[in-house]
Amino acid sequence: MGTKIIGVGSYIPEIVAKNEDFSENDFFNADGTTFSHENEVIIEKFKAITGIAERRYIKDELVTSDIAVIAAERAIANAGIDKESLDYIIVAQNYGDVKHGDSQSDTVPSLASRIKHKLRIQNPYCVGYDILFGCPGWVEGMIQAHAFIKAGMAKRCLVIGAEALSRVVDPHDRDSMIYSDGAGATIVEANEDKHLGFLTHKSATHTYDEAHFIFFGESNNQEVTDSRRYIKMHGRKIYNFALIKVPEAMKATMDESGLDISELKKVFIHQANEKMDEAIIKRFYKLYDMEAPAFIMPMSINKLGNSSVATVPTLYDMVLQGKLENHEVNKGDLIMFASVGAGMNINAILYRV
Amino acid sequence: MGTKIIGVGSYIPEIVAKNEDFSENDFFNADGTTFSHENEVIIEKFKAITGIAERRYIKDELVTSDIAVIAAERAIANAGIDKESLDYIIVAQNYGDVKHGDSQSDTVPSLASRIKHKLRIQNPYCVGYDILFGCPGWVEGMIQAHAFIKAGMAKRCLVIGAEALSRVVDPHDRDSMIYSDGAGATIVEANEDKHLGFLTHKSATHTYDEAHFIFFGESNNQEVTDSRRYIKMHGRKIYNFALIKVPEAMKATMDESGLDISELKKVFIHQANEKMDEAIIKRFYKLYDMEAPAFIMPMSINKLGNSSVATVPTLYDMVLQGKLENHEVNKGDLIMFASVGAGMNINAILYRV
Repeated sequence: MGTKIIGVGSYIPEIVAKNEDFSENDFFNADGTTFSHENEVIIEKFKAITGIAERRYIKDELVTSDIAVIAAERAIANAGIDKESLDYIIVAQNYGDVKHGDSQSDTVPSLASRIKHKLRIQNPYCVGYDILFGCPGWVEGMIQAHAFIKAGMAKRCLVIGAEALSRVVDPHDRDSMIYSDGAGATIVEANEDKHLGFLTHKSATHTYDEAHFIFFGESNNQEVTDSRRYIKMHGRKIYNFALIKVPEAMKATMDESGLDISELKKVFIHQANEKMDEAIIKRFYKLYDMEAPAFIMPMSINKLGNSSVATVPTLYDMVLQGKLENHEVNKGDLIMFASVGAGMNINAILYRV
Repeated sequence: MGTKIIGVGSYIPEIVAKNEDFSENDFFNADGTTFSHENEVIIEKFKAITGIAERRYIKDELVTSDIAVIAAERAIANAGIDKESLDYIIVAQNYGDVKHGDSQSDTVPSLASRIKHKLRIQNPYCVGYDILFGCPGWVEGMIQAHAFIKAGMAKRCLVIGAEALSRVVDPHDRDSMIYSDGAGATIVEANEDKHLGFLTHKSATHTYDEAHFIFFGESNNQEVTDSRRYIKMHGRKIYNFALIKVPEAMKATMDESGLDISELKKVFIHQANEKMDEAIIKRFYKLYDMEAPAFIMPMSINKLGNSSVATVPTLYDMVLQGKLENHEVNKGDLIMFASVGAGMNINAILYRV
C-alpha cells in the first residue's frame, strides 16, 4: 500500500516584522559581551548569511493551535474530503501553546486534541497526538502517517506542522531574527499504486555529540535577572553538522529508490538558513559529481523566515499554488522533502507527485 | 509480523510524600472558596475515593528525562539487548523537563534526544521522538512501535512513559494529592508468531465536548497573583466519561480478537483513581454479563499515586518482578493494557504473554 498527498493548506501570519524593526534591539553575544558593530551592520551580515529580510508573527490573541486549525481547514478543503473520515491527526510542534506575554508552554491537552476540538470532528476513532521532533517534525509526521497506512492501521491522516517561535525568542540574541511563525498541513491517504506517492524515506537522530546544539537557555543580556529561558542555538556547529549529514541522508533516500538523480525535479528543504540550504544542495549533487540544477530548490526564507515545522508544508503549498516564480510541480514529478533541526534530527522523503 | 515485549524496566522515585504531609496545605475550591471541613477530613475523603495513601516525587536535582534514562537502562538490561540495535526511542510525556522551582517546560531538544544522548547510543538510525497523548501516552507509544514493526520500518523499539507531575501541581488544589512522578520502559520487537504478543488494539480521542476536561489553569488560591498555571481537572466529568467510554474501548479490543473474555488473566489499567478503576472493570465485565474476577486488576495507586504515562509500564514491571501479592503473569497468559487521560484519549491493547 502506498501513501499519497491529496490536500495541502497553510497559514502565513499577518504581522510582517522587517529586519529594520530590530535596529533598536540591544544585542549581546552568548557570553554577554557586546558587539563591536552597530545594529545596522549586524543586520546586514545577518541578511547576507540567512537570506532573511522579513519574518511573520501571529497576532497577540492567537496561539500555535489556532493557526494550525486554519492550515488544517485549508488542507481539508483542498482535499475535498469529509473531515470525519480522518483516522489520525498528527501535529508536529515543539513549544506547545505559549500565550503572548507568558513564558509557560501549554501542552495538556495536546495541540492535536485542541485542533480536533476546534475542527468540530466528532469521530472518536480519529486519533490525535503531538510529535516533538524539532524542525523536522512535519516530515517525520508524514513518515508516521505512512507507517500507519502501510501497517493497515489508517487510510487517511491529517499531518500538521505549526509553531509560533515569536513566543520563545530572546530579544537580546541576534538569532532571534531567524525565527518566525507559521502553520502547514497535508492530508495523506492510502493509494494502490506503489509507484506514486511515498517512495523511500530516511530518518536519523544524532545525539551523541549533537543533542544540545539547539537548546533552551537564558537571555544573552546578563542584566536580565529572571530565569526565563528561550530558544537558543550553536549556529556554527549546526552549520558544519548539517552540511555533512543532510546530503548523506538525502543521498541514502535517493539511492534506495533505484531511481536516477537526474529525474529529481524539486527539493523542498527546511527553511533554516539560505546559505546553509544552498551549501547542502550543492554538496548533495556533488555526491553525484553534478552541479545543482537551476531552480531545483524553491525558497521562501527571504520573506517568511524560519517557522520550524511549518516551513516545508508551507513551501510546498506555495509552489502548488503557483506563488513562487520559476517553480511548479506537475503530475509524475519526482520530488524530495528534507529537513534538519533540534534533536539533532534529519529526515527525507522521496515522493512521486 | 507480530510485536512482543522482550524487556521491562521502571523507576520509582525515592521521596515518599504521605497524605499527612498535606495537612498544612491551604486548599481551595476551583472558584476560590474554602472548604467547610478541616484538612484531616478532606484527606480522609480523598483517600476513600482515590485509594491513594502515598505518592512518589523525584529529588530536586532531577528532571523527567533523568528518570526516563534509569527506566530505559533497566529495560535494556532486562531484555539483554545491545542498545545500538534499537530502531526507535518513543517517549510518552506531557510537560517536558520542568526544573525544580521553575515553571517552564523544556521540550527542545525532545526528551527522546536527551535520553538517547544519556544512554550514549551512537547509531543515528535509532530515531527518537516524543509523543504527547495525555496519560495514555505509553500505551499509544506501544501501538506506534507496533505500527512501525508491522510496516517493516522497525524491528526493535524502546518505549518509555515518564512524567514528574510534582513539578506542575498547585498546592492549593486538593487534586494535587493525586499526582506522582515515575518512569516505565519496555523493549518491543518483531516476532514471527502472530498468536503471541500484540493481538488487537484500539485508540480513541474524544474532543468534541471533552477536550478540556484536563487542562492547564491558574492556582485555586485567588490571592496568588502571578499567572503561573498548573495541571487541573474536572474530576466528576472525567469519572462519568471514563465509566462509559473505557469499558466500551476495552470490549471492542477484546471482541475484535475473537477470543473469549474468560481467557483474560489480567488488566493493567492506568492508575488514575482506585474507585474509578474499580467501576470501570466492573462495568467492562458487566458488558459480558459477568462479575469481575478476583485479582483481575493489579493496583499500585495506594503507594504510588498517579504518575501519568508511567503507571502502566511500572505496574507491569512490578507484577513481572513478583512485587504485588496475588498477582503474576505467566507465558501464554492473555492480558490487557488500558488507559484514559488528557485529550481525552483512551486506548487498549490485548496481548498474549
